[in-house]
Amino acid sequence: MTPAQRKNFNRLLRPRQIAFIGGTDAGVAINEAQRRGYAGEIWPVNPKRAEMAGLPCFASLDDLPGTPDAIFVAVPANAAIDVIAKAAAMGVGGVVCYAAGFREAGDGGVKREEALLEAAGDMALIGPNCYGMINYLDGAALWPFAHGGSCPGYGAAVITQSGMFSSDITMSQRSLPLTHMISAGNQTVLGMEDFVDVLCEIPAVRAIGLHIEGLQDVARFERMALKALSHNTPIVAMKTGRSAIGSALTQSHTGSLSGANELYDALFERCGVIAVDSPSQFIETLKYLCIAGAPKGNRVAGFTCSGGGAAMLADHSETINLSYPAFDADAKKILEGLLPDIATVSNPLDYTTPIWGQPERTLPVFTEAIARAGVDAAILVQDYPAQGLDETKHFYLADAEAFGEAAKQAGVPAAICSTIHENMDADTRAALMAAGIAPMQGIHEALNAISHGRDWAQAHARIVAADPAPLLSAPMPDEIEMISEAEGKDLLRAAGLSVPQGVLVNGAGAPGAAEKLGYPVVLKMMGPKLAHKTEAGAVKLGLGDAAAVQAAVCAMIDAVQAYDADAVTDDFLVEQMVARPVVEMIVGIRRDAQFGLAMTIGSGGILVELLADAETLLLPASADDIKRAISRLKLFKLLNGFRGNPVVDLDRLSQTLAALGNYAMDHARTVAEIEINPLFVYHDGVRAVDALIHRIKP
Amino acid sequence: MTPAQRKNFNRLLRPRQIAFIGGTDAGVAINEAQRRGYAGEIWPVNPKRAEMAGLPCFASLDDLPGTPDAIFVAVPANAAIDVIAKAAAMGVGGVVCYAAGFREAGDGGVKREEALLEAAGDMALIGPNCYGMINYLDGAALWPFAHGGSCPGYGAAVITQSGMFSSDITMSQRSLPLTHMISAGNQTVLGMEDFVDVLCEIPAVRAIGLHIEGLQDVARFERMALKALSHNTPIVAMKTGRSAIGSALTQSHTGSLSGANELYDALFERCGVIAVDSPSQFIETLKYLCIAGAPKGNRVAGFTCSGGGAAMLADHSETINLSYPAFDADAKKILEGLLPDIATVSNPLDYTTPIWGQPERTLPVFTEAIARAGVDAAILVQDYPAQGLDETKHFYLADAEAFGEAAKQAGVPAAICSTIHENMDADTRAALMAAGIAPMQGIHEALNAISHGRDWAQAHARIVAADPAPLLSAPMPDEIEMISEAEGKDLLRAAGLSVPQGVLVNGAGAPGAAEKLGYPVVLKMMGPKLAHKTEAGAVKLGLGDAAAVQAAVCAMIDAVQAYDADAVTDDFLVEQMVARPVVEMIVGIRRDAQFGLAMTIGSGGILVELLADAETLLLPASADDIKRAISRLKLFKLLNGFRGNPVVDLDRLSQTLAALGNYAMDHARTVAEIEINPLFVYHDGVRAVDALIHRIKP
Repeated sequence: MTPAQRKNFNRLLRPRQIAFIGGTDAGVAINEAQRRGYAGEIWPVNPKRAEMAGLPCFASLDDLPGTPDAIFVAVPANAAIDVIAKAAAMGVGGVVCYAAGFREAGDGGVKREEALLEAAGDMALIGPNCYGMINYLDGAALWPFAHGGSCPGYGAAVITQSGMFSSDITMSQRSLPLTHMISAGNQTVLGMEDFVDVLCEIPAVRAIGLHIEGLQDVARFERMALKALSHNTPIVAMKTGRSAIGSALTQSHTGSLSGANELYDALFERCGVIAVDSPSQFIETLKYLCIAGAPKGNRVAGFTCSGGGAAMLADHSETINLSYPAFDADAKKILEGLLPDIATVSNPLDYTTPIWGQPERTLPVFTEAIARAGVDAAILVQDYPAQGLDETKHFYLADAEAFGEAAKQAGVPAAICSTIHENMDADTRAALMAAGIAPMQGIHEALNAISHGRDWAQAHARIVAADPAPLLSAPMPDEIEMISEAEGKDLLRAAGLSVPQGVLVNGAGAPGAAEKLGYPVVLKMMGPKLAHKTEAGAVKLGLGDAAAVQAAVCAMIDAVQAYDADAVTDDFLVEQMVARPVVEMIVGIRRDAQFGLAMTIGSGGILVELLADAETLLLPASADDIKRAISRLKLFKLLNGFRGNPVVDLDRLSQTLAALGNYAMDHARTVAEIEINPLFVYHDGVRAVDALIHRIKP
Repeated sequence: MTPAQRKNFNRLLRPRQIAFIGGTDAGVAINEAQRRGYAGEIWPVNPKRAEMAGLPCFASLDDLPGTPDAIFVAVPANAAIDVIAKAAAMGVGGVVCYAAGFREAGDGGVKREEALLEAAGDMALIGPNCYGMINYLDGAALWPFAHGGSCPGYGAAVITQSGMFSSDITMSQRSLPLTHMISAGNQTVLGMEDFVDVLCEIPAVRAIGLHIEGLQDVARFERMALKALSHNTPIVAMKTGRSAIGSALTQSHTGSLSGANELYDALFERCGVIAVDSPSQFIETLKYLCIAGAPKGNRVAGFTCSGGGAAMLADHSETINLSYPAFDADAKKILEGLLPDIATVSNPLDYTTPIWGQPERTLPVFTEAIARAGVDAAILVQDYPAQGLDETKHFYLADAEAFGEAAKQAGVPAAICSTIHENMDADTRAALMAAGIAPMQGIHEALNAISHGRDWAQAHARIVAADPAPLLSAPMPDEIEMISEAEGKDLLRAAGLSVPQGVLVNGAGAPGAAEKLGYPVVLKMMGPKLAHKTEAGAVKLGLGDAAAVQAAVCAMIDAVQAYDADAVTDDFLVEQMVARPVVEMIVGIRRDAQFGLAMTIGSGGILVELLADAETLLLPASADDIKRAISRLKLFKLLNGFRGNPVVDLDRLSQTLAALGNYAMDHARTVAEIEINPLFVYHDGVRAVDALIHRIKP
C-alpha cells in the first residue's frame, strides 16, 4: 500500500461523499448507507434514471457537484473499468467494485483484472467481486445487500473473502460488536494485509476477524499481523478451503491460491494469530476478546446453578487445557458457610437453586470463589428462558449482575454463556455487555474462546519480546536434481550436523575401507536412481568383518539388479555403524512459492506414517521456535527420560536445527530441498544417518 | 420393570387425572400441564390453601374424588415418602417425585431413598430430585417450571439426568420435534433403561435422546438399546462427567456412578448408540433423524449459493468421512447447460446468484445434481436474513422448496442448514419441516448429524443381523494376586494362545536349560515383586551361549538387588527368543463392577504410551467385533503389508483374541485380570511374549 493509497483508504473508510453508480444494486446500497446512519453526501449516478432511492440521479461522474471521497460501482465489468479510470483521474479516494467477471471468471477475466488495476491508479479499491465495506464505527456503508449488526463504540473489524459469509455474520443474533465489515473479493488492489495494517491502528478496533481463502502476500501478512500484535489487537482467523475439494472450490471462487494447511498453521502460530475452524467459533472468540479481553492464564472459576452444567464445563475444559483450581480448606469453609447445605463446594461450582436469583446470597459466593481460587477468568452458565416463558428472567439477571460485579472486583475477564447458542436473548446480551460481561452463546465456543484468549496473551508476550526476523521469499527453481548421499553428507556437515564417518569407494575397495573405519559398518550403494535405498536393497547394516562386507557388495548388486537394472552402480559408501539413538526424527526443508522456506520436524522411521507426528515452521525460525515445535510433538515424551532413556538436551537439539535452517536460508539459491530421515537424536547431539538432498540445477 | 410398573408407567405417561401435591411449585406445575393442553382432571392437594392456579384444593389424597393415574409430589422429602406410600395404597399409577434430599444429599438421604423405594410399591416413579415428565404427544405434563417445545405428531423422546438441561432443551429455538421429555433424577424406581424400553415402542417416537451422567444397570441398558434398534429407533447419547472433575461433580449431583469413558464408548459402539459431545449437537442430530431419517451411506450432494459456503461444507466433511462424489463428464455437461456461465460445476455446488431464488432454474439443477451424483443425502446451505431485514426471504424459500422437491424425488434425506445457528427463523423452520426437510442450525452440526445417521444405519444393519450375546456381569473380587509368568503362560496356552517355549529353573540350572532350548534365549527372573521386569533389570534378551546365560544370571541378581533387595529370587525363566513380529500389540482384560469384563487391544511396546492407541470392547465380543476394533487402531496400517512387511491374517488374529475373551468369561470366577504386553503378531499367528495375570484370591 502506497502512502497515497493509505490516505485514500482512509477517505474510503470515512467518506464525506459517496457516489453510487449503477442500477438496482446501487439503489439497495444507498438504502444500506442510510440504514447505517451515513450523514455525508449521497450521489446516485445513473444516466437512465431520474432518481434512485428517493434521491435525484446524476447522469455521470462529470455531473457530480464535487469529487467524492468514495464510489460504489455496480455496473458490468468492462464499464466498471472505464468508470474507475475516470474516478481516478478526478481524484476520487476509494472504490468498492461490486462488479464481478474478473479473475474468478477465467482467462478473459484475468486481463480485465489487469486493466482494473491499471485504471485504479492511486485509489484505494476494495474488490472486485465483493460486497464492499461497512463502517459501523463512523456510520458509513458501501454494501449492496440488507445488512445487520451494530457497534457500541468499539468492536471487531471483520474482513472476509466470502461476501455471503460477511452477510451471514451481520445477520447473526450474537451481539458481536462490530466496527467494520469488509468483503475483500479478489483483492486486486487492497488485500487482507492492507486492511489489517490500517484497522489495527484504530483504538476502537479491539480485535480483527479474518476469513481467509488464500493470501496474496504472505510475508506482508506476517508483518501486518505482528503490527496488530504490537497494537495489542488480536487477530482471529478462519481459513477455509482446507480440504482437497474445498481448496479446489476456493480457487475457483476468488482465484486465490489456497496453500497447504500446514503452512497456514505455521504462519498463524508464528505471528500469534488465533486459528478457529467454525463460523460460530469465529464470532464467539471475537466477541469474547472485544468485551472481556484475553485472560493471562488457563485458570478458570466456573459457576452454574445445575450439576449438569458444571460437568459440561469441566468435560470440555479438560480437552482444551483449561483448569479449575480446587479450593483449599479455608476457602471451602468460607464457601460452605455461604452456600446451602445441599451444595458441594467445588470448582466449577453448582451454587444450587435455594440461593438462585438472590444476589445478596450469590454475590458473596461469586466474590469469595473467584478471589480464593486465584483465577485468570470467570464463567457462569445461564440459559435464559424463551420469550413469552420468561417470568423468571429477573432471577437470572440478578445472579448475572452479582457475577459481573464479583469478576470486576477481582479484575478478571468475565463471561456468561448459554449451553445452547440461542438461549440468551438480545436484551440480556445488551445488559451483560453494558456490565462488561461477554454474553457467550454455546458452552463449547465460550470455553474455546477463553482458551484462545489465553493462547493469544501468551503468544503476544513471547512474540513481542522475541521480535522475530521477517519471512523471506525463496526463489522457485525451474529444475532440481538429487545430489549423492556422500555429497549430501558433506553439505550437512557444513550445515553443522554430525554425520557418520564414511568413505566413498568402489565395490572392490569396500572391505579395505571398512577395515580402516572399524567394525561394524554400514554399506550403501550410491546412485541417482537410488532415492529409496531400503526398498532397492541398497543398504546393509551391521557388517562385522571384511568377509561380510565383501558378501554384502555382491548381494547388493544382485538385489539392486532385481529392483531396477539401470540403478546399479559401482559406487559404495562405507560408514561406521552409529549407536542406537534415543529417538529417530525426520527433518525436512522445502520451499513454497508463497511461504518461502519451511522446516518440518517430526517422528522418524515408521512413526512418520503411523503417527503423522510433525510440526512445520516457516523460516527463519529461532532455536526457541524450534524448541516449542518439538515440545508439541507426540515424540516429545520420548525425549524426557522416557522409560529410563537418557534425557535429550533440547536446547542443543533446537540450536542444531536452527543452524540447519539458517544454512538453508543462506544457500536458498543453490539448495532446493533437504530431507534427513532418520536423524538420530542422542542425549547430547545428533547424527544425520540418511539424507535426500536436491539442489537447484544451475 | 415389573409388568405392574409398566402398566403404571403407561398411566403416568397418559394420565386421565393428575393430583398436584404441594405449594407454589405444584401451582406452577398445574399451569404447565394446562400450557401443554392437558385435558384430564387436575386435582390440587394442599391442606392450607383453598385454591391453587385457580382450582379448588383438596386437603389430602383421601379427599380426592377418585384415584388419580398420576401424582406430582412437591413436598419435602420425608413428607413425600408418606404421601407416596399412601398413593401406592390407593392404587395410583405413577409419581413424579420433584422433592430432593435423597441419595444426592449424603448418608441420611440414602436411607430416605430406601424408604421411598419401599413406599413406591408397584407405582411407576420418576425421580426423586428431578423435574418430571412432559408428554408433548398426548398433551400432559408433570413439570414444575415454565417449559417450551412442541410436537408435530412425531419427534424425539428426550431423557436427561439434569433437570436444568431438560429445561434448556425445551427453551431452545431449534424446532426439535418432541414427543416426551423426562428428567430422570435419581432413578430410584424407573431409570433410563425403563424409559427406553417403553418409549421405543411408540411409533411417533422417531428417535430417543439420552443425557447420561451414569447408568444404573448396564446390561439392561444394552438390552433396551438393542430393543430400540430393532424398532428402528436411533438413540443419541450425550455422556457428561467425562473429565476427572466432571466425573466427581456428577457423583455429587445425582449420586450415579460415572464409569470410565472408554467403557461407555464401548457400550455405545456395541449397541449402535450415537454418541455426541455437545448440547447443540445432541439437538441437531435428533432433529435430523426425526425429520430426514438416517442416510444409508456417506455420499452427499452439497449446494450453496456462495463459494465460501461450499468450501466450508467440504472442509468439515473431510474430517468426518463424508464424501461428495464428483460429477462425470455427462453430468457436468448437463449441469453446465443449466447453470450460469460463472458457475463451476462441482460437488459441493455453488449454483451462484444469477439463478438464486428462481425455482424454475434451480429445481432442474438440484434434480440433476442429486440424481447424477448418486448420493445418500443432500444438503443445502442457507442463512436466512434477520427479522426486519428479510425483504429477500422469498428467494431463499423458493430455492428451499425446489431443493426439497428434488431430494424427495430422489428419495434421499434432505437438510437445509444455516452456517450460523440462529440464521434460520422459526417460520422458515416450520415450512421446511412441513416439506420433510430437516431445518439444521450450524454447518458443523448439520454435517455431523448426517454422519451420525450414516453410522447408525450401518450399525443397525450389522447389529440386527449379528444379534449379539448379552453382556454378563462379572463378580468383583475381594482380593487378587499376581500369578507367576510361568503359570501365566500355562494359562494363556489353555486360552489358545501360543507362548515361547521355556522352562523354570534356578540360577544354577539356567545354562543347562538354555542348552536344551537352543540359542538365542531370553532370561527372566520370576518373583511376586517383579511386575515391572524391564525397570528392575530382570529381563535379558538374546543370550547366545551358556557363558552369556551364566553371566546374565549374576548380572541380573545384582541389578534386581539394586532395584529392590526384597525382589531378588532364585527363580528364573529361560525361554527361546522368538522372531521379530510384524507388530507388537497389547491385550488386556479387566473387570468393572458395572460393565463386567472388558477387553482392551492396542499398540504395544513403547507405542502404548506414545500413541494411546487402544480400543475397548465389552465381553462377550465376537471375532467380528474384534476385527472392527482392530481396524480402528492406528496400528491397523502396519498390519496390511506396510513397507513390505507380510500381511497379517486379520480373521485369524481376531478369532484368537475372541477365544481369549471367551476363556476369560468362562473363568470369570478365578481369573481376575490379564495383560499381555507385548503380544507378538505374525502374519499367521501370535506369541504372547510377556503377560501379567492376576487371579482372584480363593
